[in-house]
Amino acid sequence: MPKSAMFKKPQPWTEVAPQLVDVAMGRRPADLVVRNGRWVNVHSGEVLPGTDVAIAAGRFAYCGPDASHAIGEKTKVVDATGRYLVPGLCDAHMHVESGMVTVTEFCRAVIPHGTTSMFIDPHEIANVLGLPGVRLMHDEALAQAINVFVQMPSCVPSAPGLENAGATLDADDVAEAMGWENIVGLGEVMNFPGVAANDPAMTGEIAATVRAGKTVGGHFASPNLGRAFHGYVAGGPEDDHEGTRMEDAIARVRQGMKAMLRLGSAWYDVASQIKAVTEAGIDPRNFILCTDDSHSGTLVNEGHMDRVVRHAIAQGLPPVTAIQMATLNTAQHFKMERELGSIAPGRLADFLIVSDLAELVIDEVYGRGVRLAKGGKLEADIPAYDYPAKVKKTVKLGKRLAARDFDIPAPYGVRSVRARVIGVIENQAPTRALTADLGVAKGTVSMDRRNDICQIALVERHRGTGSVTNGFVSGFGYTQDCAMASTVAHDSHHMIVVGTNKADMAAAANRLGAVGGGVVMFSKGRELAMVELPIAGLMSDERAEIVAAKAARLAAAMRDMGCSLNNAYMQHSLLALVVIPELRISDAGLIDVTTFSKVDLFV
Amino acid sequence: MPKSAMFKKPQPWTEVAPQLVDVAMGRRPADLVVRNGRWVNVHSGEVLPGTDVAIAAGRFAYCGPDASHAIGEKTKVVDATGRYLVPGLCDAHMHVESGMVTVTEFCRAVIPHGTTSMFIDPHEIANVLGLPGVRLMHDEALAQAINVFVQMPSCVPSAPGLENAGATLDADDVAEAMGWENIVGLGEVMNFPGVAANDPAMTGEIAATVRAGKTVGGHFASPNLGRAFHGYVAGGPEDDHEGTRMEDAIARVRQGMKAMLRLGSAWYDVASQIKAVTEAGIDPRNFILCTDDSHSGTLVNEGHMDRVVRHAIAQGLPPVTAIQMATLNTAQHFKMERELGSIAPGRLADFLIVSDLAELVIDEVYGRGVRLAKGGKLEADIPAYDYPAKVKKTVKLGKRLAARDFDIPAPYGVRSVRARVIGVIENQAPTRALTADLGVAKGTVSMDRRNDICQIALVERHRGTGSVTNGFVSGFGYTQDCAMASTVAHDSHHMIVVGTNKADMAAAANRLGAVGGGVVMFSKGRELAMVELPIAGLMSDERAEIVAAKAARLAAAMRDMGCSLNNAYMQHSLLALVVIPELRISDAGLIDVTTFSKVDLFV
Repeated sequence: MPKSAMFKKPQPWTEVAPQLVDVAMGRRPADLVVRNGRWVNVHSGEVLPGTDVAIAAGRFAYCGPDASHAIGEKTKVVDATGRYLVPGLCDAHMHVESGMVTVTEFCRAVIPHGTTSMFIDPHEIANVLGLPGVRLMHDEALAQAINVFVQMPSCVPSAPGLENAGATLDADDVAEAMGWENIVGLGEVMNFPGVAANDPAMTGEIAATVRAGKTVGGHFASPNLGRAFHGYVAGGPEDDHEGTRMEDAIARVRQGMKAMLRLGSAWYDVASQIKAVTEAGIDPRNFILCTDDSHSGTLVNEGHMDRVVRHAIAQGLPPVTAIQMATLNTAQHFKMERELGSIAPGRLADFLIVSDLAELVIDEVYGRGVRLAKGGKLEADIPAYDYPAKVKKTVKLGKRLAARDFDIPAPYGVRSVRARVIGVIENQAPTRALTADLGVAKGTVSMDRRNDICQIALVERHRGTGSVTNGFVSGFGYTQDCAMASTVAHDSHHMIVVGTNKADMAAAANRLGAVGGGVVMFSKGRELAMVELPIAGLMSDERAEIVAAKAARLAAAMRDMGCSLNNAYMQHSLLALVVIPELRISDAGLIDVTTFSKVDLFV
Repeated sequence: MPKSAMFKKPQPWTEVAPQLVDVAMGRRPADLVVRNGRWVNVHSGEVLPGTDVAIAAGRFAYCGPDASHAIGEKTKVVDATGRYLVPGLCDAHMHVESGMVTVTEFCRAVIPHGTTSMFIDPHEIANVLGLPGVRLMHDEALAQAINVFVQMPSCVPSAPGLENAGATLDADDVAEAMGWENIVGLGEVMNFPGVAANDPAMTGEIAATVRAGKTVGGHFASPNLGRAFHGYVAGGPEDDHEGTRMEDAIARVRQGMKAMLRLGSAWYDVASQIKAVTEAGIDPRNFILCTDDSHSGTLVNEGHMDRVVRHAIAQGLPPVTAIQMATLNTAQHFKMERELGSIAPGRLADFLIVSDLAELVIDEVYGRGVRLAKGGKLEADIPAYDYPAKVKKTVKLGKRLAARDFDIPAPYGVRSVRARVIGVIENQAPTRALTADLGVAKGTVSMDRRNDICQIALVERHRGTGSVTNGFVSGFGYTQDCAMASTVAHDSHHMIVVGTNKADMAAAANRLGAVGGGVVMFSKGRELAMVELPIAGLMSDERAEIVAAKAARLAAAMRDMGCSLNNAYMQHSLLALVVIPELRISDAGLIDVTTFSKVDLFV
């Protein structure tokens, strides 16, 4: 482990319990005593004024009306008069890669927002680097100032047979990972038809997780609450964050699952589903808040779990109930109630001092009894984390691409073709399967900029085959000569290039090959903006503010080129996601995601 | 394992999950479908009419509006129209030995009352037979038609140094037992001063349990909610059933413990403490119902967990909330939410068909998908369980006792003495430390029947030392020549003999020596009543109805002899409980339980 492994795992409770007892009994001074706060008690559901907490060995030793007896000469004392003591916030399901930063930089960004525990699913790096990639993030997660637990990715590749990712994971890999100290369960089981069909890969991975006594994450991305849903539930997933309607949340809870409600950079699923509690009266203990995907810009400008809790309160939830959904409920779900999720003896001293509860104004953030942030500013000294050099060499194009690699030859002798076109839908993840009549010049099919039809290419980048799959896409609205390339290309993370100009497409692709991955926009041979993502082609080694600023410049470049989509970059990065209907592109070809089969470019 | 091991452990979920999925999807018929019930959904907190459940491999496969697709030719179909489907009830903390029957006979008695899971602490047999005794009950528990999980006894003996039990258990024993398949945690940690004092035995046992990921049971038998309580909480126990007042329950929940509310044969702690929910508005998820100690008569005449739930509803709790406290809350506490505690896919098909919810009128009881009882009558064929012969030879007196063994010699030459007398208090477990002036005849101290002072003797019975510790007791009110002996003598379970006549004391003690233990009343050389308890001197091998009838005859005999105490037998059996103030007797002598020290019989 490099120098960056600055933070040690907290000592196990079993090692320090006698110290905690001594502090509670007044036989030994606490390291820190916080006095006269308003205890947001997520166990009882109360707010208890006049509460002192005494902390030793990074854990709560005493929580009650008077900790005078725990104050010694060297005890740090903090006055919290009139302010609230809130358990540190937990993000129950999220992907660090969505922030395009390392785990370390993600932590740096979210600590001032009150996040002290994250349950991360390194699904993206797993698609590039397989189990060793998961291990790298697992080890980085262990070295943080806050708690970062890892869910073992379950579906790599997402669509076996329809794409070739950089790696595959199977039930044996899952069983192996369940033995790692920081693995808390199986990441979202996205192959919901596979679960309902008893696909042995899914059955095996879930069984390995349950045998290890860990939590099986769900992902049922369908509005169907009929037999397919019941089959999925019987297969064992214990939570689901893919619900979008009130009835989705209710259905999941009734079946004994936890409804995870998501507010991410582009997910807005809390407001509708929380009505299950505020209107339908469903027991709130089954609801958990999470972000799933947060872009760096969101983290820097809007926040993280504080934003989600604030939003939940704004929907009419009592503040303590909303906080339970981001603390105790999460801890219980992962069987960590002894360890975190509340301000109570024995738990890690992860807490916030909050001046306004309903608005969740966070004055101070403590992790394991150490103040990490104050007034929204990080105080902890967090060095950057070094990834090994080979992890930064994952973009293997196999050759220097040229404009001609993006030529789409027409059938011999025709003057026009009817081609399939991927139709981007504003503000939605699904695409439309469109067709268009396109002209042919010198045996090559032409784009149709007037009708907003440009080219898309999936450039193989894991094995250096030099393979390029070409197709057409509509909806970006590019009016200029340009091309954008990205090695963030869910879920197999090859390279997606979208452009109106083939020379720019080649330039953009080659540029990413040179820098080890990222997102770049070229126009007429000129680089307009770039976010370098050298770690697995997915993550920067820079800070979230810098990544956010670069991403903002990239978004501006997209707009300058004529694109008017919201979340334009995200739309770009999802075009190879061959599990969401209707039409996608992969290294295997053009994929009809209604029939899960490869289709020809020409109709 | 003898022939009596009739019931196999249910197959692990991981083995049968594909079957459940097939049933849910309609690809395979269910074993049992219950139609059109009112689903008491403890997850959502709702009652959902028109619900079908489909069961396969002893587990729920489908719970929803229509299970037609799961009905095949061989599927048994039960119509539940208008009736409620309630999860099988769980007793979160109890001692089988209190029923004076085996685990098997206890199950036979409680199944018709809707109990399908019990968490038992074999503390009593552990005091007689040590770890092998725990193992015997552990193995018997595994062979039941319902779920019986074992908590490893934590405090054997209860009062080291003040008594010598039949065995001792330490942290190494706890660590070993945590590896047994049916151990779910550590039984009530009664040595609360030891926990707060960091007694290494307590610290070690708790740490071994936490390392194994299991649940630490608590027992804080004090009204002190100050520092001693906080020290105990910091030491790690996760629940407590010793609270008696509303503020006890609230204090425990605020500290992150579960408040276990107890309604046993002689415990009435629900009504006062449930006000924490019904009046103080504390979140009910932290409350769990249990019985702790049920006599056979209670089981036969009043019920078990059904009685507790009914009582909780009568205190004003909504029925679904009361049921949560005896199902889901219990399962979550023991980290068994995937396995039991609700009617939801994957869980064991332990459920009740109930015709009146508020009154909890139980029509049918199912365990693992098999109907075990109907209309209060057991249907399952449960053979008696054979204990090995050596377990029935635990009463070792070392000699035939004679009346003179109960002579109490006076100091030389005195005509009267001032003696310490154990004062029984009606309806309470504590005793009073009284003194009395007693006459002396022929050098021997006399009893004083007119002032209700008779003799008590603690007869050593684990090692055959022939040792008898004599003293005086007041409060039973015996007016006749008589003596009662019992090998149920909490917690070290030697033999307690109380009598007005020394010849009867000897006869009673010798009789129990001959039959291997139990409780017997003699008067003027005649046996008035006896409950034989040959298994470890604690449990009968007969059925609960028979034991209850014999216990009733014994109680009648006590009354006939002049005793007017409520729970007279229980008072008798607690007189050696050297952890509850003020004055007790043990094999080590007379014990002052306010100072935890041995005291002389004469002042």
